[in-house]
Amino acid sequence: MKTREFKRALYVGRFQPFHLGHLKAIKDVVRQAEELVIAIGSAQYGYDLLNPFTGGERLTMIRLALNEAEVDPAKYLIVPIPDLHRPLVWVSWVVSLVGYFDVVFSNEAVTVGVFKEKGYRVESITPYRQRLYSGSEIRRRMREDEEWKDLVPKSVASYIESLDGVARIKDLHTNNNV
Amino acid sequence: MKTREFKRALYVGRFQPFHLGHLKAIKDVVRQAEELVIAIGSAQYGYDLLNPFTGGERLTMIRLALNEAEVDPAKYLIVPIPDLHRPLVWVSWVVSLVGYFDVVFSNEAVTVGVFKEKGYRVESITPYRQRLYSGSEIRRRMREDEEWKDLVPKSVASYIESLDGVARIKDLHTNNNV
Amino acid sequence: MKTREFKRALYVGRFQPFHLGHLKAIKDVVRQAEELVIAIGSAQYGYDLLNPFTGGERLTMIRLALNEAEVDPAKYLIVPIPDLHRPLVWVSWVVSLVGYFDVVFSNEAVTVGVFKEKGYRVESITPYRQRLYSGSEIRRRMREDEEWKDLVPKSVASYIESLDGVARIKDLHTNNNV
Amino acid sequence: MKTREFKRALYVGRFQPFHLGHLKAIKDVVRQAEELVIAIGSAQYGYDLLNPFTGGERLTMIRLALNEAEVDPAKYLIVPIPDLHRPLVWVSWVVSLVGYFDVVFSNEAVTVGVFKEKGYRVESITPYRQRLYSGSEIRRRMREDEEWKDLVPKSVASYIESLDGVARIKDLHTNNNV
Amino acid sequence: MKTREFKRALYVGRFQPFHLGHLKAIKDVVRQAEELVIAIGSAQYGYDLLNPFTGGERLTMIRLALNEAEVDPAKYLIVPIPDLHRPLVWVSWVVSLVGYFDVVFSNEAVTVGVFKEKGYRVESITPYRQRLYSGSEIRRRMREDEEWKDLVPKSVASYIESLDGVARIKDLHTNNNV
Amino acid sequence: MKTREFKRALYVGRFQPFHLGHLKAIKDVVRQAEELVIAIGSAQYGYDLLNPFTGGERLTMIRLALNEAEVDPAKYLIVPIPDLHRPLVWVSWVVSLVGYFDVVFSNEAVTVGVFKEKGYRVESITPYRQRLYSGSEIRRRMREDEEWKDLVPKSVASYIESLDGVARIKDLHTNNNV
Repeated sequence: MKTREFKRALYVGRFQPFHLGHLKAIKDVVRQAEELVIAIGSAQYGYDLLNPFTGGERLTMIRLALNEAEVDPAKYLIVPIPDLHRPLVWVSWVVSLVGYFDVVFSNEAVTVGVFKEKGYRVESITPYRQRLYSGSEIRRRMREDEEWKDLVPKSVASYIESLDGVARIKDLHTNNNV
Repeated sequence: MKTREFKRALYVGRFQPFHLGHLKAIKDVVRQAEELVIAIGSAQYGYDLLNPFTGGERLTMIRLALNEAEVDPAKYLIVPIPDLHRPLVWVSWVVSLVGYFDVVFSNEAVTVGVFKEKGYRVESITPYRQRLYSGSEIRRRMREDEEWKDLVPKSVASYIESLDGVARIKDLHTNNNV
Repeated sequence: MKTREFKRALYVGRFQPFHLGHLKAIKDVVRQAEELVIAIGSAQYGYDLLNPFTGGERLTMIRLALNEAEVDPAKYLIVPIPDLHRPLVWVSWVVSLVGYFDVVFSNEAVTVGVFKEKGYRVESITPYRQRLYSGSEIRRRMREDEEWKDLVPKSVASYIESLDGVARIKDLHTNNNV
Repeated sequence: MKTREFKRALYVGRFQPFHLGHLKAIKDVVRQAEELVIAIGSAQYGYDLLNPFTGGERLTMIRLALNEAEVDPAKYLIVPIPDLHRPLVWVSWVVSLVGYFDVVFSNEAVTVGVFKEKGYRVESITPYRQRLYSGSEIRRRMREDEEWKDLVPKSVASYIESLDGVARIKDLHTNNNV
Repeated sequence: MKTREFKRALYVGRFQPFHLGHLKAIKDVVRQAEELVIAIGSAQYGYDLLNPFTGGERLTMIRLALNEAEVDPAKYLIVPIPDLHRPLVWVSWVVSLVGYFDVVFSNEAVTVGVFKEKGYRVESITPYRQRLYSGSEIRRRMREDEEWKDLVPKSVASYIESLDGVARIKDLHTNNNV
Repeated sequence: MKTREFKRALYVGRFQPFHLGHLKAIKDVVRQAEELVIAIGSAQYGYDLLNPFTGGERLTMIRLALNEAEVDPAKYLIVPIPDLHRPLVWVSWVVSLVGYFDVVFSNEAVTVGVFKEKGYRVESITPYRQRLYSGSEIRRRMREDEEWKDLVPKSVASYIESLDGVARIKDLHTNNNV
């Protein structure tokens, strides 16, 4: 096995829900690092408009999707990260829960900013049809009864159905407008 | 592959540090469940007497040990759980971060109690030389320069050395006695 | 005395302020349960636009209103519940502070959802002129110097006057627009 | 009805468990005030050595005991107060959750100190066989299979039995010694 | 030296960033009090739209500005106050971190309200071109490449440049609109 | 003025109470740095055995002592730091509240450890009769009516007397032994 460029990479997302854009990014990063830590941000939330799925449900989605895509389970760890609501200590908080990493993969401006400020190497992710493969787009489609299943891995679509996830998102939206 | 008795098992520990007793328990549980969630309790602590290793360091230890023991990485997930310091909501907190499970493996009275109270099935772990394979015994040996490496997996011993973990534990102890 | 259908009912509200709609709901529920726990949500807030009255002021309002309406004080308890800002553990949190209950009365979608998810029986409240008997409508009328006193019990109107509550709400609104 | 000396009194305790000393104090204070707020301190705890009973269980105990003693339910309110772990803001925190009071009844040095420092009138409670009527004494007797039921109201003894409270306390103690 | 009217004054602001309006207010208050405590509110924030500068950066700005204006450093203290997100205990929280004061200088309605409610003397600040000397106006100018440096002390302008503050504010704004 | 070795030094203590050992250390450090940040640890505590004095009282003590010792007020800042109870993010937390520093002065093992781990330069303080000039020794003397005033600056002794600090410490001790 040839050595990868990085020993351990960090990839942060909220995964509301996990979609094919996330999957493509993870497959790209897994090729460049010996191990990948997939950090689930805002992990303590669920059942709200921005975060309809709980940290544990998102952990399950990611596992199902990576199994379906036959990503080697020896190559990654999935770590839910509850928010501290103290943004200036967030990088230290992530480090305390996941341990060592030598690179962060992210296109998200604040994430890029805070890790760079602490001296971490940050690499960008090749963009992949971002308007389509986006959590907010998928949640909008769910609410408005448009087609959304082709934007997520098959196993994730089934899992969301088993959770009655579309009804949950509609309920949250209805309630919020009252 | 024959079906296992449980779909998803939960096993909770602090792993300060991960030792051969933990490894034996995990191997036993992995045989009984389709998937095992290994929850790292008090994950936000580190560099204190009871919790010398950080959540991320313990995550790393467990991964190294299970790789060394050739436990199939498709069979388990490792999830750090920071304390909320609200014991009566702890079970809900764990569920929100790890998702579904149908059995909890534990011999620890409080853990057994709180999960049973919420209606979970709890199974005990076959005890295995508990006086020896114990975090506090290992930390004591480290402090007093006795032999400790035979109580942990080889990869964990090397990792602790790479962290200069024995010196860390001695420093914490010295400082605490002043 | 004939037995009631429920042993202990839970009714949750924010009561900003307590109005005649709340009173009617409580009278309905009290007839169906041996004891009613009235839980004051977001109890730690006060002096903000959404929550102008403190938890303690709302406790006092409810007591005054139920005395005025001659609801038997042996039949209910009033419990302020501070938010934890961890929605997924909120049901456990309420249980830890109020104890046992066998039914929840609520028309509020999120409350209904989270209690049902944890296996609680949830009953709806017969709607009663909701556009009129609504905290936000009453606060709007206070701000705009319209008539609001006929929407709340007399004793609550007097209490709000003794607190100089209308001026407080106007101040909060003015300040917020700056 | 003649006017009482105080409009609203505050009485703070942990009530682990509620005993006859608490009952006697409450009966004394109820005679001196138009309304009494019974505040349950450390309300978020339960299932630990110092706080075996949850806030909601203690609320239930107090209600049962005061019903049994025929204390008029129109004369008191019971309010669980979760700790903030910021001792210097504790008085403000209590005020925000219970509202107005013009006197605090307490013999407990820290409680007396913090309320006096904020300018509150503090009255002491006539001591009543404190060595006997004490939460820690009752918990000790429970652990050591000595007689404890004569130290608490009958209804509280029955309620603790329905919770299997003695077994809970023994379990917590055993577990703690390991 | 003649005695001042107040022994110790409190002046609260967020200082995002510190500008010439703040400086004028501080110079006015320093003349009236033997000592002034300048409290930096929301001190734990930084790198967000409303709070681009950290508590420590704001502390540094204020120090630089008061040195430049030759305000006697024996006359003031600068104290960062992290939010507790419990507004009803905020006054106690400030007191616990800064100690005694006999007057509060503020024009901000909520601050005025909460301190008056706790019985503090509150004095207003002579308004000084508030539309111009305003944190939000300065942040808007920074974002839109308009002239902002004449609204802050010279030393603050240089410090913000050394932090690359304008780029930071633009980044935060861009990111927020995505 | 010749340039100092460090631009900005950090010195951390709990100052329960501020004593002549602290003063000597501060005078030493002030000579080596252009500016010194004196950080008051555990600032949110007070009225407990380990932390009898509040953050604000300690701020006041330090100011009085440095005025008495004629330390130039242009050379130092005093910053209270409330604990986060997340030790692994403590260094980031301090940085977010005090800003830049290029050296930390400390002899305390944990402080030395956590700052070194984050890459900070840490210098030790020349020890000065540590058995005598120690907060716990001074608190012990206060409790046991031994002579303590010669261990603290005169102005600090007077201030503690104005707070009735010895009685406070005895009360806390008595209460704790009950």
